[in-house]
Amino acid sequence: MTLEEKASLCSGLDFWHIKGIDRLGIPSIMITDGPHGLRKQQKGADHLGLFDSIPATCFPSAVGLASTWDKKLIEKVGVALGEECQAEDVAILLGPGANIKRSPLCGRNFEYFSEDPYLSSEMAASHISGVQSQGVGTSLKHFAANNQEHRRMSTDALIDERTLHEIYLASFENAVKKAQPWTVMCAYNKINGSFASENEYLLTDVLRDTWGFEGFVVSDWGAVNERVKGLEVGLELEMPSSAGIGEAKIVEAVRNGSLAEEKLNLSVERILKVILMAIDNKKDNANYDKDKHHQLAREVARESMVLLKNEDEILPLKKEGIISVIGSLAKKPRYQGGGSSHIIPTKLDNIVEEIQKSAGNNVIIQYADGYELDNDGVNDNLLEEAKENAANSNLAIVFVGLPERYESEGYDRTHLSIPENHRILIEEIAKVQDNIVIVLSNGAPVEMPWINKAKGIVEAYLGGQAMGGAVADLLFGDVNPSGKLAETFPMKLQDNPSYLNFPGDGDSVEYREGIYVGYRYYDKKEVEPLFPFGFGLSYTNFEYSNLIIQKKQIKDTENVTVQVNVKNIGDISGKEIVQLYVKDNVSKVTRPQKELKGFEKIELLPGEEKTITFMLDYRSFAYYDVDLHDWYVESGEFDILIGKSSKEIVLSEKIYVESANNKHRKIHRNTTIGDLLGDPLLGPKAKPFIKDLIKKSTVFNMDADQNEESEMMEAMLNYLPLRGLINFSGGAVTEQEITTIIDVLNE
Amino acid sequence: MTLEEKASLCSGLDFWHIKGIDRLGIPSIMITDGPHGLRKQQKGADHLGLFDSIPATCFPSAVGLASTWDKKLIEKVGVALGEECQAEDVAILLGPGANIKRSPLCGRNFEYFSEDPYLSSEMAASHISGVQSQGVGTSLKHFAANNQEHRRMSTDALIDERTLHEIYLASFENAVKKAQPWTVMCAYNKINGSFASENEYLLTDVLRDTWGFEGFVVSDWGAVNERVKGLEVGLELEMPSSAGIGEAKIVEAVRNGSLAEEKLNLSVERILKVILMAIDNKKDNANYDKDKHHQLAREVARESMVLLKNEDEILPLKKEGIISVIGSLAKKPRYQGGGSSHIIPTKLDNIVEEIQKSAGNNVIIQYADGYELDNDGVNDNLLEEAKENAANSNLAIVFVGLPERYESEGYDRTHLSIPENHRILIEEIAKVQDNIVIVLSNGAPVEMPWINKAKGIVEAYLGGQAMGGAVADLLFGDVNPSGKLAETFPMKLQDNPSYLNFPGDGDSVEYREGIYVGYRYYDKKEVEPLFPFGFGLSYTNFEYSNLIIQKKQIKDTENVTVQVNVKNIGDISGKEIVQLYVKDNVSKVTRPQKELKGFEKIELLPGEEKTITFMLDYRSFAYYDVDLHDWYVESGEFDILIGKSSKEIVLSEKIYVESANNKHRKIHRNTTIGDLLGDPLLGPKAKPFIKDLIKKSTVFNMDADQNEESEMMEAMLNYLPLRGLINFSGGAVTEQEITTIIDVLNE
Repeated sequence: MTLEEKASLCSGLDFWHIKGIDRLGIPSIMITDGPHGLRKQQKGADHLGLFDSIPATCFPSAVGLASTWDKKLIEKVGVALGEECQAEDVAILLGPGANIKRSPLCGRNFEYFSEDPYLSSEMAASHISGVQSQGVGTSLKHFAANNQEHRRMSTDALIDERTLHEIYLASFENAVKKAQPWTVMCAYNKINGSFASENEYLLTDVLRDTWGFEGFVVSDWGAVNERVKGLEVGLELEMPSSAGIGEAKIVEAVRNGSLAEEKLNLSVERILKVILMAIDNKKDNANYDKDKHHQLAREVARESMVLLKNEDEILPLKKEGIISVIGSLAKKPRYQGGGSSHIIPTKLDNIVEEIQKSAGNNVIIQYADGYELDNDGVNDNLLEEAKENAANSNLAIVFVGLPERYESEGYDRTHLSIPENHRILIEEIAKVQDNIVIVLSNGAPVEMPWINKAKGIVEAYLGGQAMGGAVADLLFGDVNPSGKLAETFPMKLQDNPSYLNFPGDGDSVEYREGIYVGYRYYDKKEVEPLFPFGFGLSYTNFEYSNLIIQKKQIKDTENVTVQVNVKNIGDISGKEIVQLYVKDNVSKVTRPQKELKGFEKIELLPGEEKTITFMLDYRSFAYYDVDLHDWYVESGEFDILIGKSSKEIVLSEKIYVESANNKHRKIHRNTTIGDLLGDPLLGPKAKPFIKDLIKKSTVFNMDADQNEESEMMEAMLNYLPLRGLINFSGGAVTEQEITTIIDVLNE
Repeated sequence: MTLEEKASLCSGLDFWHIKGIDRLGIPSIMITDGPHGLRKQQKGADHLGLFDSIPATCFPSAVGLASTWDKKLIEKVGVALGEECQAEDVAILLGPGANIKRSPLCGRNFEYFSEDPYLSSEMAASHISGVQSQGVGTSLKHFAANNQEHRRMSTDALIDERTLHEIYLASFENAVKKAQPWTVMCAYNKINGSFASENEYLLTDVLRDTWGFEGFVVSDWGAVNERVKGLEVGLELEMPSSAGIGEAKIVEAVRNGSLAEEKLNLSVERILKVILMAIDNKKDNANYDKDKHHQLAREVARESMVLLKNEDEILPLKKEGIISVIGSLAKKPRYQGGGSSHIIPTKLDNIVEEIQKSAGNNVIIQYADGYELDNDGVNDNLLEEAKENAANSNLAIVFVGLPERYESEGYDRTHLSIPENHRILIEEIAKVQDNIVIVLSNGAPVEMPWINKAKGIVEAYLGGQAMGGAVADLLFGDVNPSGKLAETFPMKLQDNPSYLNFPGDGDSVEYREGIYVGYRYYDKKEVEPLFPFGFGLSYTNFEYSNLIIQKKQIKDTENVTVQVNVKNIGDISGKEIVQLYVKDNVSKVTRPQKELKGFEKIELLPGEEKTITFMLDYRSFAYYDVDLHDWYVESGEFDILIGKSSKEIVLSEKIYVESANNKHRKIHRNTTIGDLLGDPLLGPKAKPFIKDLIKKSTVFNMDADQNEESEMMEAMLNYLPLRGLINFSGGAVTEQEITTIIDVLNE
């Protein structure tokens, strides 16, 4: 290949295609938006969901997928997406998104999975495995720390090393290691001073060298800052086409020697490898069954919805009487988010009709809009009509949530309220009707000052094209709700950990809450959430018993299995999401109260009991150590916690994990006496020296008994740096003595 | 002077003296501990309050002084301290301490004034002015960011530039500028990587060059790390004596050329200047009136105590019936803190006797210990005796709080509870007696899960040697309480802003809460405190009216006066602390909901009304701008808030402040289009260029109406960096065009 040909491969052909090289028979392949459905544009091209695309199945958004906590189901969605790509001749699907939900305000949260990196990366891995099993590539995005839309192309996410690894990178890590996405998409923003598109630490050190990523990195659309610098540090493909500008820069850089041609060769090899995989895996005349995919979308939607409240067991609804369905969102459902992921569905359930179908002929359904969707003002006529309906019925199902204009790619929310006309609708209906069930359509948490007005609340999220059928299934108990929250719902926006530092000042945003994201923060700060991470109700009940840790003491190099029994003690079938959290009981560094390290969704018939087995490994106990620049397990006792949610821990057992890592602290003149004596290896060696030196000190040579009694004196000595023995000895301890001891100990 | 003589002046003679030079007739002068009283040791020397010292008046600790909010009164305390120094031949008193109360856990908080830098620095300035008016020097300490005792000699306080200036340095700034302390004492800890004892930025750039400090800097006792480096950057005096080691290093450094002799000369000049001031101001045969100082201590203590709760107007107590006084803290009062500030009082009030005196002969006072002071366990006999007393009386005054072992210099607390036996005492007494008044002795906030058991709560803090008389004065209404909290009392420890980052991991502590310290945090995060900053009750009521801002629109270079009327609408005399806060209504950087910028304590007879005048200046509106490395006022509207406390704002008016600072942003290829067009100066110039370029873009050249309607598109354009116009124009916009526009605009 000529230099020009090589360089040309590193920029897109147009908005949606990688270039081919006719001379060599390398075809151009298509890349297309859409983690929860295919957005293949036919004419006009944009990355904002503005132009139309060909119809495709719209599955629930990532927020809903994650709420299923069902890896197998997500994989099935991936398979279906892969089939649609094959049918539409799309080689790579741009997704899934594994960014962490740092703030509920982020306009694109609906496209991301969770506030928890373990859950997020497991979900992403399943999604990728599914799509790629069909010979179609994915693009794990947006790598990394693209946690807000505000100034996303210019802001600098300032994140300390530990937090970056434990939270923001961990959310991608398992997805890369387990599922090997064909491509990874770099984010728009900067991370710690360097654009994601030219961040050597992220693109090379972490992604390739540490995690072993084998595909190529593609820029988010328009994310390239300096093309040559990006190429040099691991950004292979620029998208969309830069109309020759990017290629020309690469060619010039190789010519003038500022870019080694080997770097370019490596990029081209990586891109070609994926192109060839796409060609090899292309299925001719592929097709897919639209009805089956719609049915899958309905199944997934059912599993994704979360029953948040069920006072007086108002749900499931009886199939009798008069039911009012109220709210424009029932007629014009909000079933997907805005922006690049916005697709044209193959069909779309009519919610009211689906409710009538599920309710059957004995039920009279009466519908009223209640509010206008395109503005927040109260329309008195609509409100009155809705109230009248509600008053003349046995129960009201009220559809409220966030209209499209409230959340989208491109900008963030500034508050967590639903529109004023939705809120007032709830309050007014509550004046005439006691039995209210609220169905929420939204891509991220809302505040619920009106929560006491409703007996039942179903969080339907953005449920995809079969949302209507799924909602009806759940409301009438044809299916038992089984989703759980993959994110915390706060009482109020101010409670969120990022609140003081979101979306940042000017072009920088400091992640000062550090590792305390989501439930890690609410737990530690003892801030009561509205609904905690991992929470969701069922129409049945589950009993947990018999938590067994295979071995109560292990080395950190060993894996260990944990078993627990779960029994359905109610009268109907149901699914339960069993959650395993780990707590480090004593640690030298700050650690969360608990961290999710395992989960399993199981189905149980009434009275049925199953044993669930989890496997814990090194990482289940480790934190990221900034001195080692690596994960590290501190020897000590850990709690294994089994929970129905992050707040409802039902069983707990202890395990002792011993570190096999001989991490040695270097001793220096500002090492404190307490640290030195506390070191398991050096402490005993140092003790006689230190005792000797203390005797020489003017301050410390007081009556021994008095010293031992004084907590202050003990603290003083513990916190005293070695050089302090010189300061306080009135010249009796010399610099030389200290230096000698340090040298001896460091040997 | 010889090189050796010069070097010798830079280290102490012993624990408490600066060296003199006999040959030149320069005498040695004495430096002694004690912000709230003199700790002059006669034999044995330590910096931990272990050895005895000569008797001196023990005034309330700084926490109490600050709660008076009375600058004149603090100055009077300073005068008294100065008189005692003159009498005891002490040239410099080591205080006051102006560190910010970042966490209520800091063991030394009792020695510091406040969580608010404005209040703290005003208090410190008054203290210094008082002492120095007597020809005695002070040592403003611990400069800077010594906000915890945990690892204070080795920890590194990591603080962003804005927070450092707005909170931690501001707390010293006015004290230096207004009162010019003879010396400043550097802290033990590191700040942003460099020990306070060798921190050029703090000791030279800020303290001398920016604030104009004219005295010398002394090390905290044992704070010197590298002697020569310290001297080089502004640490003049090492304390205590290093027995020749420090001097030898200085001499050697000058000899081998690594230290310029001019640096040493400058240090010597600074030290000599203070020695000469001390000599010039020395009063022969000085003496002081112990009784008068005790009386002053009582006056100050009365003003420092804060009435926190007064249900059913249980206070002031009637001088009749049977009153139980319960709690060992009434017999062995805790009236000062532990550590270097611990002094021997000239006399000490007996609280029970003082209560009897105030109550008069019609009242029967019965005392019971209730608990043991030296441990936390319940002593059933003591408890039963106390309950019996309480049951057989009309009312119980219960003394609880923190024993000495709970808080001290040298270590921090780990929780905010009072001892278990104190808590149980309250709960048990409440079972037999409804009328409970609690008097608290403690140097920093405690949690009060038992708050509903008591009708009255008096926060007596560490009230000094006349605490007993002062408590009695307040309880029986001989004096009307007038103290207000100089710190927030949180509901629980976890609510504190530093909670996730205190006291840090290993040898570093990140101040991640940033500027959101104290009420700045509770306000912004809407966390309900137990008692807010600035809170305190009175036996009378005050009415506020007629808030007048002299000018409603000013330039930031102008000062402006604010007036408000306050009237005593109750039946008895009282003092009120009127607080002025400023709120920036719109700002490009994050700002607190309000910041204290003025306060005044006034006395009003029943029915009396006074007009209070505040003067606001540049700094009342400014924030510290990290791009300018200076204070900056952003043009816009501010609220002037008048409050009875930080939570109870009673009046508010608006003022528009215009910046006279022409701060120009440099335009670059990653400047966003929104920022550019929003710039008041450059925006209009840039508009035609940008419009032109947008027309060429493939993404943005869609139907104009559609674009304008789309919030997403607007956000997209606003957040787009200039170089993005190249990415999205399909080659129609060139790098050259962008560069040219940038150059033109930057001209």
